[in-house]
Amino acid sequence: MPDQSIPQARTPETPTAEPVSGASGISRRALLGTAGATGLVLGTAGGAVGYASAPAGATPLTSVGAGRAMFHGKHQPGITDGLQARGHLVAFDLAAGAGRKEAAALLRRWSTTAERLMAGEAAPHGDTDVARDAGPSSLTLTFGFGHSFFGRTGLEKQRPAALDPLPDFSSDHLDKSRSDGDLWVQIGADDALVAFHALRAIQKEAGSAARVRWQMNGFNRSPGATARPMTARNLMGQLDGTRNPKPTDTDFDRRIFVPDPGEPAWMAGGSYAVVRRIRMLLDDWEKLSLTAQEQVIGRRKADGAPLSGGDETTPMDLEKTDAQGGYVVPLNAHARITRPEKNGGAAMLRRPFSYHDGIDADGTPDAGLLFICWQADPLRGFVPVQRKLDRGDALSRYIRHEASGLFAVPGGAAKGEYVGQRLLEG
Amino acid sequence: MPDQSIPQARTPETPTAEPVSGASGISRRALLGTAGATGLVLGTAGGAVGYASAPAGATPLTSVGAGRAMFHGKHQPGITDGLQARGHLVAFDLAAGAGRKEAAALLRRWSTTAERLMAGEAAPHGDTDVARDAGPSSLTLTFGFGHSFFGRTGLEKQRPAALDPLPDFSSDHLDKSRSDGDLWVQIGADDALVAFHALRAIQKEAGSAARVRWQMNGFNRSPGATARPMTARNLMGQLDGTRNPKPTDTDFDRRIFVPDPGEPAWMAGGSYAVVRRIRMLLDDWEKLSLTAQEQVIGRRKADGAPLSGGDETTPMDLEKTDAQGGYVVPLNAHARITRPEKNGGAAMLRRPFSYHDGIDADGTPDAGLLFICWQADPLRGFVPVQRKLDRGDALSRYIRHEASGLFAVPGGAAKGEYVGQRLLEG
Repeated sequence: MPDQSIPQARTPETPTAEPVSGASGISRRALLGTAGATGLVLGTAGGAVGYASAPAGATPLTSVGAGRAMFHGKHQPGITDGLQARGHLVAFDLAAGAGRKEAAALLRRWSTTAERLMAGEAAPHGDTDVARDAGPSSLTLTFGFGHSFFGRTGLEKQRPAALDPLPDFSSDHLDKSRSDGDLWVQIGADDALVAFHALRAIQKEAGSAARVRWQMNGFNRSPGATARPMTARNLMGQLDGTRNPKPTDTDFDRRIFVPDPGEPAWMAGGSYAVVRRIRMLLDDWEKLSLTAQEQVIGRRKADGAPLSGGDETTPMDLEKTDAQGGYVVPLNAHARITRPEKNGGAAMLRRPFSYHDGIDADGTPDAGLLFICWQADPLRGFVPVQRKLDRGDALSRYIRHEASGLFAVPGGAAKGEYVGQRLLEG
Repeated sequence: MPDQSIPQARTPETPTAEPVSGASGISRRALLGTAGATGLVLGTAGGAVGYASAPAGATPLTSVGAGRAMFHGKHQPGITDGLQARGHLVAFDLAAGAGRKEAAALLRRWSTTAERLMAGEAAPHGDTDVARDAGPSSLTLTFGFGHSFFGRTGLEKQRPAALDPLPDFSSDHLDKSRSDGDLWVQIGADDALVAFHALRAIQKEAGSAARVRWQMNGFNRSPGATARPMTARNLMGQLDGTRNPKPTDTDFDRRIFVPDPGEPAWMAGGSYAVVRRIRMLLDDWEKLSLTAQEQVIGRRKADGAPLSGGDETTPMDLEKTDAQGGYVVPLNAHARITRPEKNGGAAMLRRPFSYHDGIDADGTPDAGLLFICWQADPLRGFVPVQRKLDRGDALSRYIRHEASGLFAVPGGAAKGEYVGQRLLEG
């Protein structure tokens, strides 16, 4: 959990239909004006029956329901979009016998499904009605390829070097059955039923081509729960975090997205997602005093300011010492170790969900962070930071990495194109 | 899942700060005006440090964050309040050696915690900061006693006859480890972090007096996801449902709440909660055609109208036949069997959460309904309806009751009182 800020939670003051304007806000990549706010159209494509529009005279959808991200674009949705209140991560493995042809057909079906659902329309091949009545609610679907995908489809030569397996970290406790996978889908929405509906539609469209390998659920703060846009908190209660790169940074695109022409070419406009299920050992963490917690992190819990003073945005004074000559920000403080300045300017865009899967048999909470970070090159983003954390992070006693994945997420589909087409038909 | 409507999902058109006015809307029992909308006060009681209020000049909390239910009142919160977007159910067993005295101290601590958290203040004995920055977000905490509680506290004589174990139903597949319990707490909020924060605070305050027996997570539609207030949908995609009793019904209070004087006296103003974890066999259900699904339910999926015609509120014409002489609403249709008119006017107030705990090892979804219904007498509410469903409900092939609980939920605490005080100090 490197200390870089995550996309901000949204509030109605920063509706999904307008770019977030806060200092560290992430622009909505696609927007829905009032004219489109009724959002639910009578779908006819593919012979499917779409949702009926709202009855005449009904009030338009509110900001939560009306929020809409665009499927088509230079990049896939769900990367720079604001955090959503509900999320699902699901990985698939191709079925035995399924190869490149079946994968291409699957990505075509998934793309059609994503485009329709993100517009608030019904799924193409029978709809469960679970999202009926609701607007798109800022639904995004994002598709990625794992290392194993390329061997199974005979596309080894197209496999990016950046997909080489992540190094082992000494503090890892990875469950392989909940790690990796041929294909990865990230689903986010501000309504839990809209997100669930999309998850079921994606599973249905997998048909006999792929089977679910693992699946996880997550959440973030609801839009409007806070009075103003602000950095989100995680289940440890920390502002998490403050130093995410901003789209207004001059090098934002270069650090987060693969340039065009890409290497490989089909990844132009794409990004790499590192996914880690990080359990928080909350029973231990919550026993610490506030002061002890702040020493672990290196920032004040209330407002995220560095222990060296100032506010959340003040640069950390790493050399500042106290009356006894000790560093005010401890040498093993999480925020000191992860600061981008000391990691080759490593930049990753963190866009996580919290998770809570109840309690284990021993009574401890199965809760933490579905850490998802985005970067043009994992070897310059996640890996160097995690290597340092692995060697001496004070936070490591209170967290446990339990699952891991690395996925190549191609650029967004152009109109008439499906996600991954440049790979599968290249 | 008897066919009676649930409290409606809220939208900003029916903000939590104002009574819901829809035909089947449930009034918010407690409201927060604009003056209180900044909601976060500097707590000082009990030596605890409260949340700082929002910085001067910050915009007030929006309707989602500002929603506030009152802890004190004739009835406990979380019964007639609108559905919340996120919920936790947690049952505790008293620790070995803990008796009436420890239980009384526990309920006092829990009541203090609930009152503070529902006001947007910090927890009394150290706060995790997870809800910091957010408003109360319509948080409710509701406390109940299970059958086993009374023996462990020497209060057998105070145990209501209504807490006698539910009858066995032939279609039950109950996991005892996730059923029953000495104590039950229902937590709901429109923000997932606010709900989680409350869950952890309740667990912490249990201390050595009680340990978690089981815990479940649920969700409902987010406020504002639909264009207008309407009956909620469940994960089968149905409007669920249409026939909940309304607070405006002349016999609402009599059917849902124990009258004053109560029998037993300490239950005056209380209610009985039946809790069932009902898994939906979605892979099977979703294979049915729309027509077949509607025959199972007896209502149209799109708008909840009875198959005999009309709209969602039209009474079902049970005698109507088709050209072949068959009943339009099949004899085993769920809505026919559960109609209140044929169940002695049985009325229960259903107020569920959907749940989704991922997928099982065989790939099937672990998803369905955390069915919670409220009634003055379970033997006149839940039991007769479930008996009929158990004998011939067409829906029973697509659902499975996996856990069950029955809890006596005492009336609300008066100022200076804690929940259950009339039992524990009676």
